[in-house]
This record gives sequence, C-alpha cells and structure tokens, in this order.
Amino acid sequence: MQLICKAYALLRAAGFSTDEMADIFDGWNEGELQSYLILITAKALRQRNPETGLPVVDLVLDKAGQKGAGQWTLISAAEDAVVVSTINAAVEARVLSSMKAARLAASTRLQGPTPTLGPRRAELAKLLQDALHAAKVVSYTQGLDLMRTMSEEKIWALDLGSIASIWRGGCIIRARFLDRITEAYRADPGLHNLMLAPFFEGVMNLNQQAWRDVVAMAVASGVPVLALSASLAYYDSYRCAWLPANLLQAVRDFFGAHTYERVDRPAGQWFHTEWPEVSV
Amino acid sequence: MQLICKAYALLRAAGFSTDEMADIFDGWNEGELQSYLILITAKALRQRNPETGLPVVDLVLDKAGQKGAGQWTLISAAEDAVVVSTINAAVEARVLSSMKAARLAASTRLQGPTPTLGPRRAELAKLLQDALHAAKVVSYTQGLDLMRTMSEEKIWALDLGSIASIWRGGCIIRARFLDRITEAYRADPGLHNLMLAPFFEGVMNLNQQAWRDVVAMAVASGVPVLALSASLAYYDSYRCAWLPANLLQAVRDFFGAHTYERVDRPAGQWFHTEWPEVSV
Repeated sequence: MQLICKAYALLRAAGFSTDEMADIFDGWNEGELQSYLILITAKALRQRNPETGLPVVDLVLDKAGQKGAGQWTLISAAEDAVVVSTINAAVEARVLSSMKAARLAASTRLQGPTPTLGPRRAELAKLLQDALHAAKVVSYTQGLDLMRTMSEEKIWALDLGSIASIWRGGCIIRARFLDRITEAYRADPGLHNLMLAPFFEGVMNLNQQAWRDVVAMAVASGVPVLALSASLAYYDSYRCAWLPANLLQAVRDFFGAHTYERVDRPAGQWFHTEWPEVSV
Repeated sequence: MQLICKAYALLRAAGFSTDEMADIFDGWNEGELQSYLILITAKALRQRNPETGLPVVDLVLDKAGQKGAGQWTLISAAEDAVVVSTINAAVEARVLSSMKAARLAASTRLQGPTPTLGPRRAELAKLLQDALHAAKVVSYTQGLDLMRTMSEEKIWALDLGSIASIWRGGCIIRARFLDRITEAYRADPGLHNLMLAPFFEGVMNLNQQAWRDVVAMAVASGVPVLALSASLAYYDSYRCAWLPANLLQAVRDFFGAHTYERVDRPAGQWFHTEWPEVSV
C-alpha cells in the first residue's frame, strides 16, 4: 500500500488529476501488477463526495495510524537480523504521516527543491509501473525471507509456496503475482531469495533501470519515496559482490581491536593491525 | 560509521586511490565534520600492510558482524514508533555485508547500471562532505528523538544537551558537532527535533541540494547508499506538509471500513464512505 501511495504522490506532483490517475491504475490492473489493491485504488481515486462533488481522496486527511502488525514484524526482523527494509520504510512512512502538526511547522523552515516532474509526465506512468513491479518483488522477498528464517529457527517447516497460494485465496494482497511465487517455491522448495527465482530475476533485470529513474527523479524533486528507495538500496546491496564493510572492519579494529578477516586468507582467521597512536 | 563507508564506496567507484581518499578525509577533519571517526578513517586508509605493501583496507574482508546495540535500538524504536531510519539502514548494511556468499552468487545474476561517477570526480569530495554533514544531523536527530520519547514515557528526565557533552568527552563519536547539540538544547530544553534548532536548520538548508545530488548519482550508478537515502527520505517526509497517507486512509476505509478524518472537518471526527462493490 505504501508503494502505491508513493506512485500516487509522484503522479500528483506531475500534475495528473485523480480521474487520470484512476485510468492509470486501471491500466496497471490489466498487466503484471493486477491485484485487489490496485483495483480498489483506481475505484477509490474515482469516487466523488456527493455533497461537494470533489474527489473523496482530496477530502481525506493525510494522517495514518498503526494497528501494530508492522511494528511487530520489525521487532521480529530485528531480533533475527533479517532485512525487511521495505516494510520498515512503510511503517516509518505511517509514523511520519501521523506527525501532521510537526510537518506543517517544519515545512516552512526546512527547504527542498522545486518539483520538476512535469516535463517527464508522458513517461511517468510506465516508469512507475516498472518501478512498482520491482519494488513489490523486493517487498515479498523480504517478507518471505523473514518467514523462512523464523521457520528454520523455530522448526515450523513453513511451506512458503502454499502460504502465497493461501494469500491468493482471499486476503487484501491477492494478486496475480502470488501464483508466480507459488510456482517459484514449487520449482525450488529451498529457494533462499525470491529475486533469484528465474521468473523474478527476469522481472528485476527488466525493471531495475526504470526503478532507478523514478527514485532519482523523486530525490531531485524532493518527493519522499522511502519504500521505493529502501527496496532499491536492498537490491543494489544484495547484488554487490563488494560492499564497503572492509573500511568499517578496519575502523572497528582501529578503535576497539575488533580484528578482521582478510580477502587473501581463509575464512575464520582473524587479524589485527597495530594502528598509529592518535592523540586527541 | 556507515555514512563514512558510503562516502568511501562512492569515492572508490569514482576512481580515487586510498591515499587520495585519506587526503580528502583529512581535509574534512579540518571543517564542520571534524571528529575522531573521520580522523581515524583517514589514518586507516593510509595504513599499509608491511608484508605486501598494499593498503590494509584493501586486504580486509567486506563482511561485518553485529554486537547487538544496533538491533536493540531498532527494537526500542519499533516499540515506541520512533523513526530511526539512519540507524536502521546502518544495521541493514551490516546484515547485508555479512551475506558475502549470497552476494557473490547474486552479483552474476541481478543486473545494474555501469557506474558513471568518473565525470563528476572533481566535485565529488565537496558534494560528499555536504551530504555527510546533512545525513549526520538526521542520524543524531533520530537518536535524540528516540531518547526524548523514551525519557518522556519512562519519566527519566534525560538532559539531552548534557548527554551530547558527555559523548564529546570520550567515546568514539566525539565530534565538534556535539558542542552544537549541547548549545541547541541549552537554548531550548524542550526542543522536539534537532533539525529545527536554528544552527541545524541552517546546516540542512545549506546542504540539502548536495545531499540530493549524491543520492541521485549513487542510485544512477548502482552504488547502494542505504543510510544516505534513508536519512534524505526522512528529511523530505518531515518537511512535507502533505504526504500521500490520504490515499492510504481511503483504501483502508475501502477494504476494511477503517474510517478517516477529513481536511475540512475538525480533528477527531471520523468518516466512512460507501465505496462501490467489488467482485473479484
């Protein structure tokens, strides 16, 4: 839902009317994004308030609460050191939305750029469709990774493919997409990361460039896209053979003699450097 | 430390040598970023391994573990619904760094763009200095917000200005910066958000554009910058008078009759729309 809201925020910043946005969501519902949430988002955008004639969404206050499921998920993930950055970003977005008075006060003092999405209006719907698709894969990848990790730890023997097909049956996330997840786990019950199932690998590789374009555009325009950028950072980290944690390990060894492993020595051997004295 | 690592990753992607990077960090240590961590990062980058003559950091494996403080912070923040996205991103970066084997496998399958930081080499050090400065303010803002929230809830009466000055005294985060935090709380003991203290407001407004440039550049180049982008998304959300949570509330009312507040009615009045029937 948070990813959908960010797509809406970008379309709004580019000057689309609620009816035009409803048409875009209806179009997405014909393709790979087909889902109950996309469908009802289109209908919600089209709904008019009978008294004022205005779109209902324009009358709704931008302030959302929590019912606790998101926070509970974050606590479980933190305990088990599983990265669920997309869910985390969605919870953060709700918390920040709830601070309406603080935001109003800050908006007159903290500066940003002028949004310049107008010129990219023609291509925006297609870019967003692709970005949403990729980010949605990451969102499910992370949720399934948490379930897999907890299942292994607690010996629950969860069947993730069947869970995806149960979701398909009736809950609010029912989506065409879930059939692909069921198929992926049927083909490889030990699958460690959904993005590496051949179908989803194809989705990521096909859509990663559009996703980047959308995030870069949002950042340049000052439109916050927490969930879209957090999921992209996960993707870029996960596919990175090298990450700068070597510097982190060196600095930790510098101030606290934490020791480090070396790229030219077998794993499990720990080294320490005699760093220079520092007087401060 | 994670923000420093991301700066290092970007400098490395732009082709700087470790000695050139050490010079850049030494330069930063002369200005507003002056801190123990910046100082020892410069020294760590300059250190050579006596046997091989290579920079020590190039021999260190990019795989970092956790000691638990980060996870503990995330659990506290999730329980109290406080946004600590920069700390969260740093914990995620450590988890992802620890999955070295998975990353190596994924790196041959999940695609990204070719990094194109070379042409911006000349301006990169200055842009990174400004981006680090802004992101560092957000990192402290979020940590202090968590302490303030817990202090209020548990009636601890924490004196945040004094805490900053204790950090100044001896721990690894000792930084010139901390004096500014102490001054901010001395001027306004009830300060709710560090970014709104006049000094830090100035820092944010001065550096927000460079910060955007760095994040957009990293995203376009496929270099993951979780902490830099998570902190920017917080900044852009916090300064946004309007967030797309109205659509979220409308959709929640659609599928679950959650009800919503309205922009044209007093707070605390809850409304429900009779949405169209959906057959799926």
